[in-house]
Amino acid sequence: MTPPTGDPSPPFTDSPESSTDSSPSSTDSPPSPPAGFDFLDRALAERGAAAFVHVGDRFDADLRYLCGVAGYDGEAAFVSTGDRAVLSVPSPASGRADPAFGGEVRAHDLDASAGERASRILSDLLDGTDGNTVLVPRHVPHDAAVYLRRTGHEVASTRAVARARAVKTGDELDRLRRAQRAATRAMARAEAILAESTPEGDALVWNDDPLSAERLRRRANETLAGRGASDAGNTAVEVGGGGGFPGEGRDAGEERSADAAELSPGETVTVRLAPRGPHGYHGFLRRTFVVEGDGGWERRAHVAAEAALNAGLAHAKPGESARTVREEVLAEVAAYGFDPDASVVGDAGHGVGLDRREAPRLTGESALEAGNVLAVTAGVDDPDEGRVLLSDLAAVTDEGCELLGEYPRSIVPRSR
Amino acid sequence: MTPPTGDPSPPFTDSPESSTDSSPSSTDSPPSPPAGFDFLDRALAERGAAAFVHVGDRFDADLRYLCGVAGYDGEAAFVSTGDRAVLSVPSPASGRADPAFGGEVRAHDLDASAGERASRILSDLLDGTDGNTVLVPRHVPHDAAVYLRRTGHEVASTRAVARARAVKTGDELDRLRRAQRAATRAMARAEAILAESTPEGDALVWNDDPLSAERLRRRANETLAGRGASDAGNTAVEVGGGGGFPGEGRDAGEERSADAAELSPGETVTVRLAPRGPHGYHGFLRRTFVVEGDGGWERRAHVAAEAALNAGLAHAKPGESARTVREEVLAEVAAYGFDPDASVVGDAGHGVGLDRREAPRLTGESALEAGNVLAVTAGVDDPDEGRVLLSDLAAVTDEGCELLGEYPRSIVPRSR
Repeated sequence: MTPPTGDPSPPFTDSPESSTDSSPSSTDSPPSPPAGFDFLDRALAERGAAAFVHVGDRFDADLRYLCGVAGYDGEAAFVSTGDRAVLSVPSPASGRADPAFGGEVRAHDLDASAGERASRILSDLLDGTDGNTVLVPRHVPHDAAVYLRRTGHEVASTRAVARARAVKTGDELDRLRRAQRAATRAMARAEAILAESTPEGDALVWNDDPLSAERLRRRANETLAGRGASDAGNTAVEVGGGGGFPGEGRDAGEERSADAAELSPGETVTVRLAPRGPHGYHGFLRRTFVVEGDGGWERRAHVAAEAALNAGLAHAKPGESARTVREEVLAEVAAYGFDPDASVVGDAGHGVGLDRREAPRLTGESALEAGNVLAVTAGVDDPDEGRVLLSDLAAVTDEGCELLGEYPRSIVPRSR
Repeated sequence: MTPPTGDPSPPFTDSPESSTDSSPSSTDSPPSPPAGFDFLDRALAERGAAAFVHVGDRFDADLRYLCGVAGYDGEAAFVSTGDRAVLSVPSPASGRADPAFGGEVRAHDLDASAGERASRILSDLLDGTDGNTVLVPRHVPHDAAVYLRRTGHEVASTRAVARARAVKTGDELDRLRRAQRAATRAMARAEAILAESTPEGDALVWNDDPLSAERLRRRANETLAGRGASDAGNTAVEVGGGGGFPGEGRDAGEERSADAAELSPGETVTVRLAPRGPHGYHGFLRRTFVVEGDGGWERRAHVAAEAALNAGLAHAKPGESARTVREEVLAEVAAYGFDPDASVVGDAGHGVGLDRREAPRLTGESALEAGNVLAVTAGVDDPDEGRVLLSDLAAVTDEGCELLGEYPRSIVPRSR
């Protein structure tokens, strides 16, 4: 491969000056064997690869999963050869890996290229041999792959980390439950505000002022913050229908005209929460409320949505094809007389973990297994009538599935 | 380049089935010319390149800068050939680009590869000609670069977007001011809680309960949420010294033993806030307080920190080398008799914008220019005595610099 040509100023320079080589952990003592990387060892063996390498910034869930490292500026690098694992973190963050990380922690200069650093560490661990195959996630930064290839290695992609992340351990389930508890408290706050609101003409009034979607969103986020969770930009309050799954598709923290919109009686109000808990794992909860509804369309839609959600959850069990969950949701909505094309939108769910959306996807053929955690979504979206969506978070168990946190599904808001 | 070998299941497959080709904007009407991409046009001309391409997830600040797109699941792709710009978003997010985005918006399947999609769009825009040079940011996902090369293009890195982002427009400055206002309100809340706390033995007590770092952090984050800002995982409450710039180096949302630690009288408490405002821009504010201090070391350190911060800010002006700001901060701390090696840690600041840390860096030789926005940090860190750090956010103007939001610097906490 021809290396990408660089700007006059680097990014792709590999002069020795551009990275420091300090190692805060002693190199005299033998590094601890990496713990919990069996899935990487298997991937290396299956592919005849010498190492796994990843580089990412603090938003990278794979690095957090592998090392528990989080919150750093710049980029961190992870290298595993099977018997040795090294994490290199930008130097002010040195040593900030999870204490449970079994590998060696080194530091590099904050402004240095973590990709170059990974390539140097790899040469060190492989004792200078080149011509090896190195596995990387497909989204590894391109410059990191360039450095690895310049050092003489073949770069090949692997989904090993994404697959491992799709199956949660007991500790991970506890962290997901905890994030979901924060979500249920924030939902209760939003629902109570709607319950306390009174119609005045076309407006809903709460605490003497018109209630807007943004005002409701902020109160829900206050509750999350007070519980030690971050809204993670994921809290969405959506009014009326015709928008598909809009909370999935844009930054809920965006200030837009829709947020300033005042809520009205009889209108569907959908609250979507996907807070990030203190360990980085996400909750996922969505409910739809109507204040002073006329009991017509939205009640029928809500009955259909709840039945469809239950139908989907009933098929969230080991051995079942992931797409069956989605198909059951769609079929049940249709069974209630709603046009599937004009009603349920999107993929009816997805895995949840260190990312708010991760494997497994519900459009694939792969079989679910115990430890998968799914946000399942069901509902009806009609541009003329409104949008009724319900989402719950469930873990696939040996027998079926278990809701991670329960929250009532009534469309009429109550103070709880 | 040999394309990376794929897993049995794709990421690198390029079968037509793996991506949809729907285009919500009409292809009959000519696309609007992209607005505000002069810096890309110049980069293309300088490098003899045919196009600029980028792919990223919702955390990618470059994509947000180019298109205003945010909050989507999966990956979005941006392609510009100079006269045409196309954004492709995962389909539930279709049309969620900033209304100000002057290019064409298309959609692709949520689970499709945005890199493959970018490569197809590029072929479309270039009418099938290959052998072109295509500019990408250095952190573009590797699989996107692989698709571009497979289509027959040379891939070369550019820092054009990072450089453009380093110089803020008036609108961007307004968004930064707004985020900084949220930061000042949250700091006032934290400071008031410290002012209301009373020593009881070794503990500080607030509202009848011992005050922990985590409790203080949650109250500050409630204030951010109530103002419509996200803590963005950046709020850090640090106690005592010897940690360097720890708030820079780890996820402040992490639950760790330090957070559970109860605060004590006479101890330095450093609060770092870098909230993300509704448009994605960050504030940056850090203050250090001591409740019932003995007036000794920490007061001298605070005087030095404030003088050093002022010295740094005095050199934040157009034409000045960025590293001068840092050097002035370090020199001033030393002038107050503190050992520079054992005292100030880190780079004394960095640019702030859509990322909490971006260009310009304060370790480089490049000259500052009007529109640069800097978080400048000054202080003293002593493992035995404590840590006194102050950070302010300032915009470089034609004449010098302007603080984006002012907050008092007293070390004795007060209710404001």
